[in-house]
Amino acid sequence: MQNKSALAAAAPFSEQEREAVYKAIFTRRDVRDQFLPDTVSDDVVQRLLKAAHHAPSVGFMQPWNFIIIRAQEERERVWQAFSSANDEAVAMFPDNRQSQYKSLKLEGIRKSPLNICVTCDRDRNGDVVLGRTHNTNMDLYSTVCAVQNLWLAARAEGIGMGWVSIFRDADLKGILGIPNRIEIVAYLCLGYVDQLYTRPELEIKGWNKRMPLEDVVFEGKWRGGS
Amino acid sequence: MQNKSALAAAAPFSEQEREAVYKAIFTRRDVRDQFLPDTVSDDVVQRLLKAAHHAPSVGFMQPWNFIIIRAQEERERVWQAFSSANDEAVAMFPDNRQSQYKSLKLEGIRKSPLNICVTCDRDRNGDVVLGRTHNTNMDLYSTVCAVQNLWLAARAEGIGMGWVSIFRDADLKGILGIPNRIEIVAYLCLGYVDQLYTRPELEIKGWNKRMPLEDVVFEGKWRGGS
Repeated sequence: MQNKSALAAAAPFSEQEREAVYKAIFTRRDVRDQFLPDTVSDDVVQRLLKAAHHAPSVGFMQPWNFIIIRAQEERERVWQAFSSANDEAVAMFPDNRQSQYKSLKLEGIRKSPLNICVTCDRDRNGDVVLGRTHNTNMDLYSTVCAVQNLWLAARAEGIGMGWVSIFRDADLKGILGIPNRIEIVAYLCLGYVDQLYTRPELEIKGWNKRMPLEDVVFEGKWRGGS
Repeated sequence: MQNKSALAAAAPFSEQEREAVYKAIFTRRDVRDQFLPDTVSDDVVQRLLKAAHHAPSVGFMQPWNFIIIRAQEERERVWQAFSSANDEAVAMFPDNRQSQYKSLKLEGIRKSPLNICVTCDRDRNGDVVLGRTHNTNMDLYSTVCAVQNLWLAARAEGIGMGWVSIFRDADLKGILGIPNRIEIVAYLCLGYVDQLYTRPELEIKGWNKRMPLEDVVFEGKWRGGS
């Protein structure tokens, strides 16, 4: 393989193509309840996983694995694990937010027909990984890039996705047979949707507000106090 | 705001739109050397940042900040910080990989006209954050989703991006005035490109191989040993 021949003209995006990418980005939602029961076929699942597998990874390490969960009994067990962790979560909030917290639906584990657990194998390329020498989180971050690729590809396929993070790791590892040394990065719920929120659900339901973009952008240096 | 009225038909993607999303995902590269000197105008930068700002975030926390660095002297200082960290990195590799490591260009800090440092403010929503109660990394992961949104939007705009992770945090915080309590997630180099590698540069240059997709996908449960 010659290095030179591997460089090619960077195919530009037409205005329509560019707008399609922004459409995926701006209309993507964290879906918890709008899932339809329709099966997501294997070829669609393969396209989603291929999109995830083409995420950037530190040192081209590809540290991810994807566990596909469709069986209802399995999803029921995962939901039980969520539910018991969520009881702990409620109790961590101040009294005045607990009832609002409890009113929110935070997962679609049993309603979505397809769940995917995304993990990171931190030992995949040995101890020393190009690009991970100074930031040891980089392999976890690569795995998150795979999740975001999957999310946007799902949106383009008409599939909604939600990321559930309220679990005790040991519970999920026990149910799915995940070895102790493997890090769970995300538990995803997927299914076709015909309705989506026009803005993030937690914004619509008054949990938190969208920050103005200018408040999070600095020129040249950090602005404001420590 | 009525909850009901905020649900709308999930605008489906045409086949062309879907293909555009996959084009961004599959042709995105970690660019280190193909940057053109052309200025990225403020309105394009705003579109990229808006795409990043519309990433999913745990508890709708939006924990990110974006520091825009264009000044050559500033980028030179950042490059010096990279360079000294990279000298440390080389020494961590086994002897037989050091010369190959040194032959790779791992950053475009000085060549790319636009750099963006992406940070995570872990205290933005107080101690207890919806969805971060059991996985304390979730705010960092939200910030990574913003990076991946930015990356794909950049690709659609004809802009290449590279993620540089070889820094000592203290160096970068000193140069950019970032408070100690803030976590640096990514340092990004951006610029227009007219050529891109057809496959990941580290694959083309023989550093690592693409894993077959089927090797990273499991059905129902983890497969194989611990």
